[in-house]
Amino acid sequence: MIKPLRIALAGLGTVGGGVVRLLDQNSALIARRAGRPIEIVAVSARDRSKDRGVDLSRFAWIDDTTALATHPDADVVVELIGGSDGPALTLARATLGAGKGFVTANKAMIAHHGLELARAAEQANTALKFEAAVAGGIPVIKGLREGMAANEIARVYGILNGTCNFILSKMEAPREQGGGRDFADVLAEAQALGFAESDPTFDIDGVDAAHKLAILASIAFGTQPAFGTVAASGIRHVIAADIAEAAALGYRIRLLGLAEDGPYGLFQRVHPHLVPISHPLAHVTGATNAVVAEGNFVGRLLFQGAGAGDGPTASAVVADLIDIARGEYGPAFAMPAEALAQHQAADPGERRGRAYVRFMVEDRVGVLAEIAAAMRDAGVSIESLIQRGSGGEDGSVLVAIVTHEGPERAVAQALERLRGSQSLIGQPMWMHILG
Amino acid sequence: MIKPLRIALAGLGTVGGGVVRLLDQNSALIARRAGRPIEIVAVSARDRSKDRGVDLSRFAWIDDTTALATHPDADVVVELIGGSDGPALTLARATLGAGKGFVTANKAMIAHHGLELARAAEQANTALKFEAAVAGGIPVIKGLREGMAANEIARVYGILNGTCNFILSKMEAPREQGGGRDFADVLAEAQALGFAESDPTFDIDGVDAAHKLAILASIAFGTQPAFGTVAASGIRHVIAADIAEAAALGYRIRLLGLAEDGPYGLFQRVHPHLVPISHPLAHVTGATNAVVAEGNFVGRLLFQGAGAGDGPTASAVVADLIDIARGEYGPAFAMPAEALAQHQAADPGERRGRAYVRFMVEDRVGVLAEIAAAMRDAGVSIESLIQRGSGGEDGSVLVAIVTHEGPERAVAQALERLRGSQSLIGQPMWMHILG
Repeated sequence: MIKPLRIALAGLGTVGGGVVRLLDQNSALIARRAGRPIEIVAVSARDRSKDRGVDLSRFAWIDDTTALATHPDADVVVELIGGSDGPALTLARATLGAGKGFVTANKAMIAHHGLELARAAEQANTALKFEAAVAGGIPVIKGLREGMAANEIARVYGILNGTCNFILSKMEAPREQGGGRDFADVLAEAQALGFAESDPTFDIDGVDAAHKLAILASIAFGTQPAFGTVAASGIRHVIAADIAEAAALGYRIRLLGLAEDGPYGLFQRVHPHLVPISHPLAHVTGATNAVVAEGNFVGRLLFQGAGAGDGPTASAVVADLIDIARGEYGPAFAMPAEALAQHQAADPGERRGRAYVRFMVEDRVGVLAEIAAAMRDAGVSIESLIQRGSGGEDGSVLVAIVTHEGPERAVAQALERLRGSQSLIGQPMWMHILG
Repeated sequence: MIKPLRIALAGLGTVGGGVVRLLDQNSALIARRAGRPIEIVAVSARDRSKDRGVDLSRFAWIDDTTALATHPDADVVVELIGGSDGPALTLARATLGAGKGFVTANKAMIAHHGLELARAAEQANTALKFEAAVAGGIPVIKGLREGMAANEIARVYGILNGTCNFILSKMEAPREQGGGRDFADVLAEAQALGFAESDPTFDIDGVDAAHKLAILASIAFGTQPAFGTVAASGIRHVIAADIAEAAALGYRIRLLGLAEDGPYGLFQRVHPHLVPISHPLAHVTGATNAVVAEGNFVGRLLFQGAGAGDGPTASAVVADLIDIARGEYGPAFAMPAEALAQHQAADPGERRGRAYVRFMVEDRVGVLAEIAAAMRDAGVSIESLIQRGSGGEDGSVLVAIVTHEGPERAVAQALERLRGSQSLIGQPMWMHILG
């Protein structure tokens, strides 16, 4: 009789319930694929009495979550509690310290403490796996860690937050399908539909995507996870007119996490971008995630699928368990923790690219000249400029500029020159054009 | 000192040269990722004197390719000779028989003899890997075998032949970009550009895609590879008018390999399909490959990238070598060969779907009635019908029908009724609509 892989499960929310259901429903298939059964033996969550729609009476209930780490019947602990620190981190340290395997969907914890945990896993010669932490059900960590392992990867980028992509694709939909509205309006609808949290800050301000990006960059480039140097902003300031102007120019707006590793250092940014309509990411709509990585031999690879939800996330968690059951795992970040380089954060000013800058301005003589002069004085070369009356009651005018390729520093300097100008209404919106 | 993984390489064509270059150029990175260096020790090819643009003097040259299998310095043999039988198969058997690992890009051999070779690898407790055999650089075998391992997979399909996709996307391009031409014309151009072989039969008649599909289906469904039951046809009979009619209806034409596993058996088909413009595969242009798999928990995943070429294919070959160097490999078809089921081939007549059928007919009274009656008598429900003068000198008329969803048997029966009709010019073109 082959020994099953025995699991202790911490956290019984949406994803935890999904893992229980998946291991029930696909158990025979999983045993064939993994070479042995995978069985939950113990569970722990905050509220024992809550009805979760799955039979938990088969499993030992452990009140003290940390005690799962030393549960004598468990080979692997699955952590689905969440949070970068607190009980999740305590459990991770205790589990790896006890020499058991550890599987998690916790992007915040891996982005912040992944290096420490990878070292602990290597010392204990056990598994640390977190496929579900990035892009839900898409096997993109495996794709980078193994599928692209032969390549020097220069760039990895993608749509890493389903909530933002849902909102942006709603905004860009035709008016008769509910499009053409501003951000706040569509966010309210997304919340009503359950596609956005009641506190959506982590999603819409880019923090969630930044966690994921830091993990992807580490694996792609062989560098230590560096969440602290991800420059993150979100989609709060994208207005309907930006979507319309971008469309007229042949682009769609997507919140991209983008990381590059070059001679100038490690560059990591989460920001709304203009994506050319000919690029596959322009066609990713709804809550879908998609990741592109560019290797020096394989070229451009795209991985696309559901970035969240109980089913997809459970699929990734159990894929990690199957790898462990098969004995097919190694260093969490694709190479031993001590081999991970520590690259200096790049100065974004040195990056070159094309930019979209949109101003809302007063409708009066000389405003355009003021903007044009600021651009000229900073050395920004303008490819196209559109000025359009907003049609709003305030008589404001939209000015949208697309620049030729040039250093980002020049655009920053131009905007600095315009800071405090009486002609501008609100902050300019600067978006990068994916090249 | 950590022992390197030592490689014997058979075949020094485009891909073989790519593997040598990749292992040279990325050697330090690969050693960090794999935990040890990967080094070629011996090579074998037909012509020793040929200049391949890489320095081969570092490696032992072995005239007798089969002798690589027992080369005392080699841990793994990489086979890049090609051909389903002959020297490639002899080498595979000898290598696995000698207990060494075996890595290949040979889709034909794996489609025909994969089960035998998987058994041999398991008996010898060694690795058999063939990521490069399907979709070039895209890690889709890994994606199915490992990334989706927790899922019951009901359907896998995709664009598996870059030559055909290059030709179809050329045909569908706007006229000013060289589109609107018929197949033969574009094929000649593709051959001149090196995107199609001088003998393109395997590509354009769907055999190459059928090899790949049989491999994907086996891994996705846990069934024995069954190349013999793949129904394959190609794109020879797609005309410019098909592309135009499909576009007018909201579709693009793609040669899809599609496999399903259901209660009615194992269904495998390579055939041009109408793909809705809203589907990601409709936006895959040029020589790119893309594979979609649908899992019962993860939903729909898409893997996209370069399906051929020396760089991408070498990337996949070396990814397999890194897996072996890491010790992260197991049964070739995701489960032990003896666990693979043998499912009966499905009767395509029992499948339900929507169809596009295009006729070229004589321009005379009663033709439309004849076609409509044949459809009615076979029980085919017509959703839309277009009749259009071809504008050609022969006065022929195009009739294109889109059916409602129904059994494929009915469409086959309708076409059978029309066989030999004096009204029809040439064979009708029947394409399935991806649902």
